[in-house]
Amino acid sequence: MDTVKQIEISPGMSVDSLTKAMMHCGFGARRLGDAVNIYESMLIDDYRKFFALSGAIVPAGMRNIISMLIRDGHIDVLVTTGANLVHDMIESFGCHCLGSSDSDDVELRDAGLSRIYDIYLRDDDFIEFEELMQSILPDKEEVISGREFIRLLGSKIEDRKSIIRSAYDQNVPIFCPALADSMLGLQAWLHSQTKNLHVDAFADVKEIIDICYQSPKSGIVILGGGVPKNFALQSMLVTPKSFDLAIQLTTDTPEAGGLSGATLSEAISWGKLSTTARYVTVYGDATINFPLLAAATISRIRNKHQNIK
Amino acid sequence: MDTVKQIEISPGMSVDSLTKAMMHCGFGARRLGDAVNIYESMLIDDYRKFFALSGAIVPAGMRNIISMLIRDGHIDVLVTTGANLVHDMIESFGCHCLGSSDSDDVELRDAGLSRIYDIYLRDDDFIEFEELMQSILPDKEEVISGREFIRLLGSKIEDRKSIIRSAYDQNVPIFCPALADSMLGLQAWLHSQTKNLHVDAFADVKEIIDICYQSPKSGIVILGGGVPKNFALQSMLVTPKSFDLAIQLTTDTPEAGGLSGATLSEAISWGKLSTTARYVTVYGDATINFPLLAAATISRIRNKHQNIK
Amino acid sequence: MDTVKQIEISPGMSVDSLTKAMMHCGFGARRLGDAVNIYESMLIDDYRKFFALSGAIVPAGMRNIISMLIRDGHIDVLVTTGANLVHDMIESFGCHCLGSSDSDDVELRDAGLSRIYDIYLRDDDFIEFEELMQSILPDKEEVISGREFIRLLGSKIEDRKSIIRSAYDQNVPIFCPALADSMLGLQAWLHSQTKNLHVDAFADVKEIIDICYQSPKSGIVILGGGVPKNFALQSMLVTPKSFDLAIQLTTDTPEAGGLSGATLSEAISWGKLSTTARYVTVYGDATINFPLLAAATISRIRNKHQNIK
Amino acid sequence: MDTVKQIEISPGMSVDSLTKAMMHCGFGARRLGDAVNIYESMLIDDYRKFFALSGAIVPAGMRNIISMLIRDGHIDVLVTTGANLVHDMIESFGCHCLGSSDSDDVELRDAGLSRIYDIYLRDDDFIEFEELMQSILPDKEEVISGREFIRLLGSKIEDRKSIIRSAYDQNVPIFCPALADSMLGLQAWLHSQTKNLHVDAFADVKEIIDICYQSPKSGIVILGGGVPKNFALQSMLVTPKSFDLAIQLTTDTPEAGGLSGATLSEAISWGKLSTTARYVTVYGDATINFPLLAAATISRIRNKHQNIK
Repeated sequence: MDTVKQIEISPGMSVDSLTKAMMHCGFGARRLGDAVNIYESMLIDDYRKFFALSGAIVPAGMRNIISMLIRDGHIDVLVTTGANLVHDMIESFGCHCLGSSDSDDVELRDAGLSRIYDIYLRDDDFIEFEELMQSILPDKEEVISGREFIRLLGSKIEDRKSIIRSAYDQNVPIFCPALADSMLGLQAWLHSQTKNLHVDAFADVKEIIDICYQSPKSGIVILGGGVPKNFALQSMLVTPKSFDLAIQLTTDTPEAGGLSGATLSEAISWGKLSTTARYVTVYGDATINFPLLAAATISRIRNKHQNIK
Repeated sequence: MDTVKQIEISPGMSVDSLTKAMMHCGFGARRLGDAVNIYESMLIDDYRKFFALSGAIVPAGMRNIISMLIRDGHIDVLVTTGANLVHDMIESFGCHCLGSSDSDDVELRDAGLSRIYDIYLRDDDFIEFEELMQSILPDKEEVISGREFIRLLGSKIEDRKSIIRSAYDQNVPIFCPALADSMLGLQAWLHSQTKNLHVDAFADVKEIIDICYQSPKSGIVILGGGVPKNFALQSMLVTPKSFDLAIQLTTDTPEAGGLSGATLSEAISWGKLSTTARYVTVYGDATINFPLLAAATISRIRNKHQNIK
Repeated sequence: MDTVKQIEISPGMSVDSLTKAMMHCGFGARRLGDAVNIYESMLIDDYRKFFALSGAIVPAGMRNIISMLIRDGHIDVLVTTGANLVHDMIESFGCHCLGSSDSDDVELRDAGLSRIYDIYLRDDDFIEFEELMQSILPDKEEVISGREFIRLLGSKIEDRKSIIRSAYDQNVPIFCPALADSMLGLQAWLHSQTKNLHVDAFADVKEIIDICYQSPKSGIVILGGGVPKNFALQSMLVTPKSFDLAIQLTTDTPEAGGLSGATLSEAISWGKLSTTARYVTVYGDATINFPLLAAATISRIRNKHQNIK
Repeated sequence: MDTVKQIEISPGMSVDSLTKAMMHCGFGARRLGDAVNIYESMLIDDYRKFFALSGAIVPAGMRNIISMLIRDGHIDVLVTTGANLVHDMIESFGCHCLGSSDSDDVELRDAGLSRIYDIYLRDDDFIEFEELMQSILPDKEEVISGREFIRLLGSKIEDRKSIIRSAYDQNVPIFCPALADSMLGLQAWLHSQTKNLHVDAFADVKEIIDICYQSPKSGIVILGGGVPKNFALQSMLVTPKSFDLAIQLTTDTPEAGGLSGATLSEAISWGKLSTTARYVTVYGDATINFPLLAAATISRIRNKHQNIK
C-alpha cells in the first residue's frame, strides 16, 4: 500500500508543486491531486472535452479562466446556466462589485444593488444589459435552437475575454437548457412583444446527442451541479457512448440525495459514465478549487507537452 | 426577550404539537416552527401560492403530498424539474425501489438498475415510460408553451395521485423551465424524428409573469433550489409585485455562494421578496422537513378553520 | 425488492405514524424511519444504552428530552461536553433567550448578551452560574474522577428537569472528557486559587472501560460528533466488546474526513461497532431529528410494551 | 466600491500569486485571499500566535506544515486533540496508508486496518505505538498538567518533523483539553495499572489563561472546530484581553448552530474576539485550504521581510 507523504511547503512554491504533493495526502487534498491528473489526461489526449458550469461562477471571478480554456482549445462543449451567460455579458461592459454577505438587504434594495452572496450588481448595469439585449436580440421568423441563439449573442460581444465571444470565435457550442430561467428569458419576453424570436425548447437535445455520438472518447469537468450537470450527462443516455473521464467540483454532498451532490459513481449505474471511467469529485468551494485545478493542469501540460501548444 | 422553552415530548404526540413546541427552541427546530406558522398564513389567507420543487423529491416518496396539496387548493402555480415530472409519470404505472447508497454501481448497471442515492429505477420502467411517451406525445404543427406541453401530458395520465394529473384536474399551471433537461427532452427528440412537436423556449416566461402581475399577494414554498427556485423568484422582477411570504427547505447553505443555498433575505435586495416579507429557511433534508411542514400545517388549518375546507 | 411507498399525510397525524411512513421513502426520511426501529430495539431489549451528546443541544431546547430519557431508564451512560453541563445548570435557575442569528455581535457584547447562533445568554445568568459554582464546588483533598465531579455537582442541583440532577437521582454516570473546556474549567480554576479540587484527567477512562466490559450487549445514540462520540466509541477498543446498535444524528458529512461526520461503518474497521451491528446515520439538524426520534420511539414502546413502563 | 477582478491563471504560477488574485473575487476565493493577508499580519507583527488544531489533520498529511510553523516561530501556543498527537507519534516511526473511502469495513477489520475516511492505519503500527507509550510514559508521584505530560512525551520522540518534538525543542506549549479522549487515554489507563501517572484535569486552564494575560496582542488560526477551538477562545474570557486577529478553516457552517461552524463574529459577543478584530472564515476542506494559506503566507513574509528569517 502507498503511504501518506506529509506535505512540505516552501516559499514561492507553485500551484503545480502543491497539487502534486497533495496526491499523497488524504481527504480533499488527494481528490484535488487526482483531479489534476485526470484533467491532464483529458487535455493532452484525444478526448471530446465537455464542461458543465453552474453556480455564480462568473460573478465570483472565474470568467477569464473559462474563456482562456475555450480559446486554448480545452473546452469543446460548454453547458451552462442563463445566469452565467448574463453575467458574462455584463462583465463585457460593466462590473460586479465586492460587497459583504452580511449586508442589510433592504438597504441594498434602496441603494439599487442586487446581492449574490458577497458580490453586488448595480441596477445601472442591469439597465445597460437590457439596452444591449434589446439592441442585439434578433428579429427573425425562423425557429432556432438555444445553441444558435447563444452563438448569435456571442457574435455581438466585443470583449474577447467574454465566454460567449470566445466560444463564438472558437466555434464551441454553448448549451443552456434553462434559457428562460435568467434575465435572458425576461429580455426575450420583452423583445417578443414587438419582434420575432423563436427558440425551440428541444432542438439542443438533438445537437448535443449528435456530438456525443461522434465523440470517440469523452471527458467532462463539472463545476457545481444542477441542470448543466444533468443535461451534459444525460446526453450520453441515448448513445452507446459514455464519459471516460470525469471531474466534479461541488459544495453539495451525496447524503442530500440530489443530483448536484450525487457521486460520479452513481452516474455509472445510469450508463452516463463508462464502467471503466476514471473520475473524482472534489468537495468544496469551486472558486478555490477550480483555479487550483486549472492553474496546475495548465502548468503541467505546458511543461511536458510544449509541442502541443 | 422570549426565552427558550425546553421541548417536552409525550407518547402519541402529534406532528402539530411537536412543531408548536419547536417554535420556542433554537436552530432548525425554531426555523421549522416558524415555517409552519408562515405556511398556515399562506394557506388560510388570500395568497397566490407558488411552489418550487427541485431535487429527487418524487423518487424519494413525497409525490402524494404534492398532489394532495394541489387537489386541496394549496398550490396555485408549480415550478419544477423535468426529472420530477418523469418520475411522477413512472409512479403512475411503475415504481421506484428501495436500494442502498453503498451499492456497487457497475453491478447495478449490469442488473439494469439506475440509482438515485438509495433508490433504484428498473430499466423496464424506463422502457415502459418511453412507450407511454411515444404514445401520448402530440403530433401538432402549432407552437405551444412548456406549460401547455405538460398540461397535455397530464391529461393522459390516469392515476389521480399523479402530480401532473392533479394539476390538470385542478387547472394548476406547471412550469418546467429546463424541459429538455430530462427524459422528456430525450423522448421529445425521439418523437420529433417522425412527428411534429414545437415547444417555445420562452413562452412560459410571459405566462408566469402574467400570473405574478395578477396576484394581489403571493407566497412561495421552495423545496431545494436550482432552476425552479430561480425561475419562480425572477418572475417577480419585471412586475411591481414581490413575494410576501416565503419558505425554503434546502440542504445547501449560503456560504457556498450559489442560488440554491442563498438566503431569502438576499432575494429582497433583488426585489423578488418584498422588504416587509415574512420568510424562513429550514436547512436540512426535505424528505424529513417537508412532510413535517405539510402535516403540521394541514392539521392546523383543519382544526382552526374547519369552514375553509 | 421493496418499493417506495409515497407518504400520505393527514390532519392530526402522530409523529409515530409519520416516521413509520418514512421507512418506505428515500434519503433522510428512510434513515430516520430506520433510526426509530433501531432505537425501539435498543430501548426494549436488554442493551446497555450509551448516549453521546455534543453540540449546543441544551441551549437549543433539547434538555428535557434528555432528562426524561434518563429518568425513564433509557440512558445508562451519558458522555457529553462541558458546555451542555453548564447550560443545563443555567437552565436550573436562569434561562436562554430567543435571539437572531443575524445579530450585530458588537451590540450584543455591549448589551451583555453572548450568542449561540440564534440563542442569547445574559451576563447576569453567567454571574449567577459563577456564584452557584463557587458555592457548590467541593473543597477536598482527595483526587476524584470527572464522573465523580459531575455527580457531585448533580447532587446540588434542585431542578429535577436538570440532566445532571436526573443522572444523580438515577445513578447514571456522566462522562465529560474535556471537562476543562467549558465554564466548568474556568470556575474550577478560580476555585483552585483558594480551595482544593483535584480531578484526575484519566480516571474516567477506567470507569467507562469497566462499564463496556460488563455490558453483554450495547447500543449508542450519538448526537453530533466531537469528543463525546469518540470517547464513547473508543471505550470499546480495549475490550472484546463492541456496539451492537448505533444511531448517529449529525450535520457533518463523511466527505470532510473528520470523525464527527464519519460513517458508523468506519467504526466497524476499528472494532468499535461489531461487524454485525445495526446502525444508521441521519444527516441533518438534531434539534429537528432528535425530538422526532425520541417522540416516535417513546410512542412505540408505550403502545407495544405497556407492561414495561 | 471595489470591483471583482476576474482571475487570470498562467503556467507555473505560484500559490502566492493565485491567492493574491483571489482577493478580488467572490465567495471562498476572497475569504482565502483575506486569510492570507490576516495571517501575514499575524506572523510579521508582534502577536502571540495561537493555533487550534482539530480534525484528522495529521493522518491527512498536514503534519510537516504544522511542525515547520512551530520551528519557524509561527506558533506560540498549540491547542489540539489527542488523536492528532497520537498520529504524530505514529508518523515518527510508522505510517498512514492511502486507502479508499468506499472500502468494505468488515474486510478492513479482518485485514487489521482501521480507517479514517480514505486513510488506513495498520494494527501493527498501533501495537508499536502501544509499546512506545508504555516505554516512555513516566512513573512519577507528583501531579502534572496536561501540557507537562505532552512535553514529556515530546522529549522522547526523535523525529524532528514531529509536532510534539518540534514543540519541545522550541518550548511551545501544547494543550490537549480532552487528553483522555484518544489512544493516549487508553495507554495512560493501561500504564496506571502498574505505575504512577497523575495528570490534573484543570491545571492547563491556569497555564493558558496566564499566557492570555501576558499577551499584548493575540492572533489565532483555527483548523476545524471542536474542543481546540473552544478551549483556545474561552481562555480569553476571564482576562481583559481578546483575540485581535483570527482565521478559521472549517467544513462546518453556522446554520448547524454548533460551535465548530459558528462565525468568528459570534465570538465577539462573548468577548473572545475584540470588537475591532480582523477575522475571516474559509469554509471548505482544510487539507486544501491550509496548505494554500501556509504556502502563500510563508512566501509573502520571506519575500517582503527577508530580514525577519
